[in-house]
Amino acid sequence: MIRIGVIGDARCDAATAKVAEEVGAWIAKRGAALVCGGLGGVMEAAAHGAKKNNGLTIGILPGKNSDDANQFIELPIVTGMGEARNAMVVRSSQAVIAVGGGYGTLSEIAFALKWEIPVIGLATWELRKERYPDRIIRVKTPQEAVEKALASIQKR
Amino acid sequence: MIRIGVIGDARCDAATAKVAEEVGAWIAKRGAALVCGGLGGVMEAAAHGAKKNNGLTIGILPGKNSDDANQFIELPIVTGMGEARNAMVVRSSQAVIAVGGGYGTLSEIAFALKWEIPVIGLATWELRKERYPDRIIRVKTPQEAVEKALASIQKR
Amino acid sequence: MIRIGVIGDARCDAATAKVAEEVGAWIAKRGAALVCGGLGGVMEAAAHGAKKNNGLTIGILPGKNSDDANQFIELPIVTGMGEARNAMVVRSSQAVIAVGGGYGTLSEIAFALKWEIPVIGLATWELRKERYPDRIIRVKTPQEAVEKALASIQKR
Amino acid sequence: MIRIGVIGDARCDAATAKVAEEVGAWIAKRGAALVCGGLGGVMEAAAHGAKKNNGLTIGILPGKNSDDANQFIELPIVTGMGEARNAMVVRSSQAVIAVGGGYGTLSEIAFALKWEIPVIGLATWELRKERYPDRIIRVKTPQEAVEKALASIQKR
Repeated sequence: MIRIGVIGDARCDAATAKVAEEVGAWIAKRGAALVCGGLGGVMEAAAHGAKKNNGLTIGILPGKNSDDANQFIELPIVTGMGEARNAMVVRSSQAVIAVGGGYGTLSEIAFALKWEIPVIGLATWELRKERYPDRIIRVKTPQEAVEKALASIQKR
Repeated sequence: MIRIGVIGDARCDAATAKVAEEVGAWIAKRGAALVCGGLGGVMEAAAHGAKKNNGLTIGILPGKNSDDANQFIELPIVTGMGEARNAMVVRSSQAVIAVGGGYGTLSEIAFALKWEIPVIGLATWELRKERYPDRIIRVKTPQEAVEKALASIQKR
Repeated sequence: MIRIGVIGDARCDAATAKVAEEVGAWIAKRGAALVCGGLGGVMEAAAHGAKKNNGLTIGILPGKNSDDANQFIELPIVTGMGEARNAMVVRSSQAVIAVGGGYGTLSEIAFALKWEIPVIGLATWELRKERYPDRIIRVKTPQEAVEKALASIQKR
Repeated sequence: MIRIGVIGDARCDAATAKVAEEVGAWIAKRGAALVCGGLGGVMEAAAHGAKKNNGLTIGILPGKNSDDANQFIELPIVTGMGEARNAMVVRSSQAVIAVGGGYGTLSEIAFALKWEIPVIGLATWELRKERYPDRIIRVKTPQEAVEKALASIQKR
């Protein structure tokens, strides 16, 4: 089963949530499983979208309690490791889609780029450093994000 | 979805594998998801049993590569954390069934007892220390193991 | 610098604390660094003993805050990983001395035995399982514990 | 004891190494302990500088073996957690100094910014995102980096 990660803030505005929900919906429609951090905001919206389309939703939680998961998570993975779990959200995904995102999301983008896991970006961080090209694949729509994620997985 | 962990050695003899496979089969027949460490031996046999019965199998891997998972794992969680992932196998399960097991399994039993996650034992470790009663629920058959696991989850 | 771990409960009675303090004292007198989990009980008593003898004390903390360390910890390592940090306490030690101990200590003993890091035991767990000899080196006094730890490190 | 982290690539050119070595030297001269990832490149150069000035050097290693540490690490912390250890390098530091750096360093900067641990930057990443001001304190010299790190710790 193909696994696509969705990363983004635990709190977000309605417009961002709508985008995340559509990303989740497209992941499910394409038959892939959704991997995320299991909490609120972008994670919850994406899981909601996937669930409505009968997708499988996996939440890799930072805390010690499966009840921390949002209501749309089918499978909570309880790490008890705090934000170090960000590394696992990334490693367990074959591609990640960043929807907006704060510093936590930035750490996930960094891990993905390090491990050469494709990163698709919707209104996310811009990075600049000599000799490190910004390798985020930038897109405009949720559907495009999921198509690019699937295409990047195929190519590997 | 109820999550039951199966813990045991990455290498085991045919008799132990048969027991593990039946444990996995019963987990699937009862509609629960199987959580394990994703590698060989007891983990592979249990996943095999679950898969044959259309169960969902989750492998929480120690390494950095999803290809480390045995062929019966539907959902690999890639931790890259080495055996510290044992803590996560336990935390992500609502009850764990130990089938035989070596020192790694012993670490998982210890975490489960610490966090008051029920441990069902089939031919596994015996522990002795003043003021620490051996709280492993010992059973004789795979079916009994799964029934006890489900009953212990119900009670919580 | 030689690193010896001391493992045991975060709460303990006065007699156990006295033993732990003497273990810490001997570690420092022998010029080794003390590694522990950084919290109370056995960890605090051992760090106290080491500190009184000008030893270096390292506390590998489960939480997110260096203030969680007991007052005798010179160097807090802040993991934020919960009890999965037990794996690191063990890996960072060249030998571990168990003073009593509950389930958390049992998880550390299990990891040490798995990774063939010598375990010296003072009134600690007894383990029994076919084909797994109980390889804990049992001693009667704090000084003997530290001497055995040093000897076991030398031999490797 | 004050703990200052130095983060940067495991491989670097001679000019960057020289800067890192001077950062390490100033940390030691100011009586602080150096925390780093324990490997080569910037980590090794910084540890070298600290060691030459009788500083204490701590290496929080990703692998399972203390021998992975560079020769200037006095205290190896062996995590066995892969790059998820980046979270611990940051958490265990009261301020971090980034010297150049690749994607791994970027993940550490992200964690530090998330947890409000001051980040001092020498020729490091530039980050841009709406509503997330780039809070890296940019400096020109190793001495200035260490002075800013100390000042930022004082203020908290």
